[in-house]
Amino acid sequence: MEQRTVGVLGAGQLGRMFVEAASRLNVQVRLLDVGDTAPAKQINYAPNAEGSGSEHVDGSFVDPQKIRQLASKVDILTIEIEHVNAQQLQQVLDEKLVDAVHPLPSTIALIQDKYAQKVHLSERGLPLADYIAVGPEEVTASSDAAVTSKAQERSVAEAGSAFGYPLMLKSRTQAYDGKGNFVVKSPEQAAEAVAALGGGKRGLYAEKWAPFEREIAVMVVRSATGEVRAYPAVETVHRDSICHTVHAPLRVPDAGVERRAREIAQQAVATFGGAGVFGVEMFQMPGGQLLINEIAPRPHNSGHYTIEATETSQYENHLRAILGMPLGSTALKVPSAAMINILGLADSDKDAEAVAKTLAPAAVSLDVPGATCHLYGKAGCRKGRKMGHITIVGQSDAQVRERLAIVDRALDEATELAKTGAKLPKRLTLAGVSDEAAAVASSSKAGGAAGAAKTKSAADFSHPQPLVGIIMGSDSDLPVMLPAAEILKKFNVPFELTIVSAHRTPDRMRTYARSAPARGLRAIIAGAGGAAHLPGMVAAQTALPVIGVPVKGSVLDGVDSLHSIVQMPRGIPVASVAINNSTNAALLAIRILGAADPSYLEKMQAYMDEMEDEVNGKIQRLGEQGWDYVVKK
Amino acid sequence: MEQRTVGVLGAGQLGRMFVEAASRLNVQVRLLDVGDTAPAKQINYAPNAEGSGSEHVDGSFVDPQKIRQLASKVDILTIEIEHVNAQQLQQVLDEKLVDAVHPLPSTIALIQDKYAQKVHLSERGLPLADYIAVGPEEVTASSDAAVTSKAQERSVAEAGSAFGYPLMLKSRTQAYDGKGNFVVKSPEQAAEAVAALGGGKRGLYAEKWAPFEREIAVMVVRSATGEVRAYPAVETVHRDSICHTVHAPLRVPDAGVERRAREIAQQAVATFGGAGVFGVEMFQMPGGQLLINEIAPRPHNSGHYTIEATETSQYENHLRAILGMPLGSTALKVPSAAMINILGLADSDKDAEAVAKTLAPAAVSLDVPGATCHLYGKAGCRKGRKMGHITIVGQSDAQVRERLAIVDRALDEATELAKTGAKLPKRLTLAGVSDEAAAVASSSKAGGAAGAAKTKSAADFSHPQPLVGIIMGSDSDLPVMLPAAEILKKFNVPFELTIVSAHRTPDRMRTYARSAPARGLRAIIAGAGGAAHLPGMVAAQTALPVIGVPVKGSVLDGVDSLHSIVQMPRGIPVASVAINNSTNAALLAIRILGAADPSYLEKMQAYMDEMEDEVNGKIQRLGEQGWDYVVKK
Repeated sequence: MEQRTVGVLGAGQLGRMFVEAASRLNVQVRLLDVGDTAPAKQINYAPNAEGSGSEHVDGSFVDPQKIRQLASKVDILTIEIEHVNAQQLQQVLDEKLVDAVHPLPSTIALIQDKYAQKVHLSERGLPLADYIAVGPEEVTASSDAAVTSKAQERSVAEAGSAFGYPLMLKSRTQAYDGKGNFVVKSPEQAAEAVAALGGGKRGLYAEKWAPFEREIAVMVVRSATGEVRAYPAVETVHRDSICHTVHAPLRVPDAGVERRAREIAQQAVATFGGAGVFGVEMFQMPGGQLLINEIAPRPHNSGHYTIEATETSQYENHLRAILGMPLGSTALKVPSAAMINILGLADSDKDAEAVAKTLAPAAVSLDVPGATCHLYGKAGCRKGRKMGHITIVGQSDAQVRERLAIVDRALDEATELAKTGAKLPKRLTLAGVSDEAAAVASSSKAGGAAGAAKTKSAADFSHPQPLVGIIMGSDSDLPVMLPAAEILKKFNVPFELTIVSAHRTPDRMRTYARSAPARGLRAIIAGAGGAAHLPGMVAAQTALPVIGVPVKGSVLDGVDSLHSIVQMPRGIPVASVAINNSTNAALLAIRILGAADPSYLEKMQAYMDEMEDEVNGKIQRLGEQGWDYVVKK
Repeated sequence: MEQRTVGVLGAGQLGRMFVEAASRLNVQVRLLDVGDTAPAKQINYAPNAEGSGSEHVDGSFVDPQKIRQLASKVDILTIEIEHVNAQQLQQVLDEKLVDAVHPLPSTIALIQDKYAQKVHLSERGLPLADYIAVGPEEVTASSDAAVTSKAQERSVAEAGSAFGYPLMLKSRTQAYDGKGNFVVKSPEQAAEAVAALGGGKRGLYAEKWAPFEREIAVMVVRSATGEVRAYPAVETVHRDSICHTVHAPLRVPDAGVERRAREIAQQAVATFGGAGVFGVEMFQMPGGQLLINEIAPRPHNSGHYTIEATETSQYENHLRAILGMPLGSTALKVPSAAMINILGLADSDKDAEAVAKTLAPAAVSLDVPGATCHLYGKAGCRKGRKMGHITIVGQSDAQVRERLAIVDRALDEATELAKTGAKLPKRLTLAGVSDEAAAVASSSKAGGAAGAAKTKSAADFSHPQPLVGIIMGSDSDLPVMLPAAEILKKFNVPFELTIVSAHRTPDRMRTYARSAPARGLRAIIAGAGGAAHLPGMVAAQTALPVIGVPVKGSVLDGVDSLHSIVQMPRGIPVASVAINNSTNAALLAIRILGAADPSYLEKMQAYMDEMEDEVNGKIQRLGEQGWDYVVKK
């Protein structure tokens, strides 16, 4: 479809997933990286005209000559890694060897220097943790290392006075996956920290410690004409400073956090020139404040999930952006998704089973519904190397987390085995994927969120990722409302149960109702008696369906409660069920879930068939035992 | 992860999508097809040890020597097309040149001969249209063509007496995409039909005409141990006997059709040996009877949609099956999906714009949310050649069909231009994707099903793919129920409105309620007065959420209706709203849709914010104009 050829600096896993997207649109790609079997090159056969070799370039993406060689073969240049030779990219652009470089070489250079990146963003009013330059503004090969490192140590002490301890000391360049960071806990550590980061020979800066509640990432695609589209904000969970899991969409009680995260990310990306996808990593502080941590000028690990979970993947959108095609939709196409990285657990040359141990989560994932395994085709296994990832999709957060937990447990177990050097059990290999895992997987397939119901203790408390909330004004309503909980348990619906009183805890009611959609709830069951304001007042403060259960009081037989609940004014509906009939409220909630998830619809039909069979059994008994069987028993 | 290498006979688009799946699991694939840039070979770089060429095999998949050459390089053999040399596959299996061939060569041979396939299936009790052998059982190179064709003509006449006219005359072998079929309309056409199908030199058979209502396909994956898993049944729409579009899931009022289609497909596939994916094509006859048309022993065009729309694609499941890995989930991960084929509109050498015209739907699809374009990298464009396909996913059938219509219109327009030889307008090219299409696309993104609301005439009738049904016992309830329709129109919800009376049309009510989920409805709004049985009786016969609107009668102020609707017995819930308040019923239905589709949740929140603003406006007016402004106006 597109006649222009794209050149990519780097042919690792990001390049590989980019090539997948390009192939689907018949876009020719030429790659620059060392070797002819780098991950991206494996899935892109590009014979040269003589048929004696490849059109890809074998070499380093920092080598000026190799960059020029790649540029001579393509129309547009892009990157899969920012640690490239930005100066040479500028040079080939200036010489018009290519039509465009995306992102702009100046943007790449800016982002390579994390201190310059901070200055750029803070000057444009974007929120960042406080930071300060450490030592001289510029450190070059000709700088006196001893003088420089002394100056840096003095700066660290000043930063400590300004920010307090601990503080983060960071290398300005070549920092990723936690490399290039040092936590300085006291003034005495200044020299050690500077030395550890190669201070004296490298520029450093210090950052105020950010005691964040969670880490958030937003992928943003920017067209050459400046249109920006954000993907949904996601939660990223790191282990040892490397991305471990990603969860989409972000669930935070304050719905404003998700919206603000996307806005900030879009604003930040709008400040850069050129086109393409950018990954914006943020800290969410207590109270909901968001601080930008750093920005990657390319598709990002936190956006892998978009391949299976959004309408257009980050890789295809990067391609579209740099080629001036229309940007694709960034909307989620599934209700919930997660991603888990597969890192090398050991070096192949030291542990014969290194590969098998590393791939244990992948093997186990084959039995997990909704899981898609991506292996990167990397030749050797090394500890910490990104070997693949697994994306998991599902109908709810609860279902996705249950599915993820199977893979995560396999990962933990394999990690332990790699440490002890013990042999991998068969059930963690492809040849013997655990029957246990398969059983859990198939129960999850049928059920949704069986996890919570397994032990009495868990099932009697609220589920951490509930789909339905049961609330009532007082624990005196519990006898009426508990049948609802029993029904939800029977159907394996993840739910929470708590007390929210319209009249005694109006603020709590407001918070509960307003946070419900952002927390992933899909329906609320509210029981109330007498004046019975709770269902209607909750419905007035959430866009979710609210089911009202009129609780029978000591007078008026519950008719007062019923009328208070059902006779809502035009504009705000409450779904009322019969007086004291919380069973039906729960069944209605499940029917509502069935609108989103056909498995609930099937289970409801099975429940109805069962009721029919039960009555048919009684009819038969009447015929066999006579009409007085009820009296006799 | 998997050490064994897979060889594939054929490297077209099916092989290409298979290679995509294999790469993600680090499975090595070697391909046999003509040329070194066949679609699948383009995305699979397999250098030979000398570095001077490729490990793929250049040749025909019917050439015995080439098949042996491929077999010598791999552990497992499979196919992407059934017109291969099955005898040679049996030979390499017998000689143990490979560990396995999937599907079994005997299965491939059986399926190659469509008459033998019919005999095999009918002997095993599977439902087929009546068929009859035509002429001699076996036609070989040494048969006397004149004698054979005379015998065939006589058989056609006999088939005509048995089946009536029209009847289908079919070639036993090498038949696909409508090639090898001839519709015989009268006894006089017998000789013409036999000649047209190469009778005399080829085996033929006749089939009773099947005046089907729709065509259905089910992909089934079969493991080597005989486990079978069916994908959801889909509707396939053909144009000129070639697959035009596919719609998933199947929507038929009788939910039993979908279940039976899957059961029949699984039974059919279970009769074959070996592992892999099979495509089962069926006719649905009036009354719901299903007849198997034919079976493909490989991933199939009607399963392309699985890449974007199900938890495991047909390609990955084919790979898993033939390698003995656990089978993946075949469940849909999105509510609705469609696929449209991109066929060559003209030959490149005759029409300079053949490629651009052919790819016009692909260009336009870039502006359609939920669309993913797959181009196959085929070198030349020829009329009728499969050049690519587009998959479209969405939150509802209505949304998917609206999105599909944009692409389909571009296809129709480009087809017309290819016929007349006229030039392609810029808006149908990549460089100028129609602003109009973009506008429709963005409205659909925001709205869901805007299509219905565009003209007065369409909006005043039921939507063909409704999400909500509004029903009432009589048109006398219309004044009370119309506000519900107005609200659904305002929110762009596709809905239907009709009369269903519990007491006067009990059979219609039963059919309506039972067919509702299979037709894609997600909620039903039922209005009723007095005894008001409709909502409860509908709820008793469907697993969907039913919202009851108590209609005020001439006595009792509607309290009779309210109590009849709300006081449902345990087990069957009805969501009751206030008396005569169909507005709230519709708003509740939209909140229920919001449980599945966050865009409705957002729109509901915006509606609530608007109501708040309206009241705030009145408060301001009170302050500015005094308390008597209402009386004054």
